Amino acid sequence: MIGKKTRELMEIPETDFIIPADNVATVLYNHPLEHALLVLSKVGYNQIPVLDSDDRLVGLISLANIVNRMMGLTGFDEKLIENLTVADVMEVNVPCVADNDLEDILHLLVNRSFLPRVDEQGVFCGIITRKEILKAVNHLVHRLEKEYILLAKAPMKNHA
Amino acid sequence: MIGKKTRELMEIPETDFIIPADNVATVLYNHPLEHALLVLSKVGYNQIPVLDSDDRLVGLISLANIVNRMMGLTGFDEKLIENLTVADVMEVNVPCVADNDLEDILHLLVNRSFLPRVDEQGVFCGIITRKEILKAVNHLVHRLEKEYILLAKAPMKNHA
Repeated sequence: MIGKKTRELMEIPETDFIIPADNVATVLYNHPLEHALLVLSKVGYNQIPVLDSDDRLVGLISLANIVNRMMGLTGFDEKLIENLTVADVMEVNVPCVADNDLEDILHLLVNRSFLPRVDEQGVFCGIITRKEILKAVNHLVHRLEKEYILLAKAPMKNHA
Repeated sequence: MIGKKTRELMEIPETDFIIPADNVATVLYNHPLEHALLVLSKVGYNQIPVLDSDDRLVGLISLANIVNRMMGLTGFDEKLIENLTVADVMEVNVPCVADNDLEDILHLLVNRSFLPRVDEQGVFCGIITRKEILKAVNHLVHRLEKEYILLAKAPMKNHA
């Protein structure tokens, strides 16, 4: 449980940290892999969401996923991916969140640089990034002892 | 200023969040770019530090930096990088920290996924990652109102 004052000090934005889908680069699972390579090398993100034709989240794809497939025995070869689609290489079963539970979000972001947010039908709504969370953490740690006196609660009874 | 109790609640590890240089994949600035490509595609990190022969930090290199250089007019071509070194493509003037000021670290990590840590000679000592910081944030937000009563300080005099 994250307390009410802790949340207030984090100055959680009205958007609940979500960068909306319209502002996030994505690819379709049936796109040629070369297209994903082009998008990923240009957008400046390591990894982007993969959607189906109904905008449902089906996976994530990274530059490393594609580059590894292009690595042949004698070096690097674009021909190795020329008949592949995004679905052949994407990471599936990726963690995502379907609500704004800050506790879950903070736990999952320890191991992922962003979290996709989906609705109850699995439709991709946007992403929650470490960047937005770290802005809130900066608010929290700077304001906490400036605005509050922290009074230790009585310790729990010791049954030893 | 980050308060003493805030720091305690973050359970700052003895390592001060630093992953030591020995455990971090790096490349030398004069390495062939193909070598960096191989390292980056295997290590699972988007970006790694670039060192000189005295172990001083001179830049960072990412998979996207290299892939962009391989993008020719007619597609992707490994030949385009065959005479290049890491120094030709790396990002220079990257933010890094020379002490363990948590305030600086938290600010800088809003925009970078990790921060190189150097000593006073610029020698690379390791990295501080968002992952390690987010672990500490989880400790903080979970423990804060469980262990302390937050008592609002008297508001500052209003000069309006």
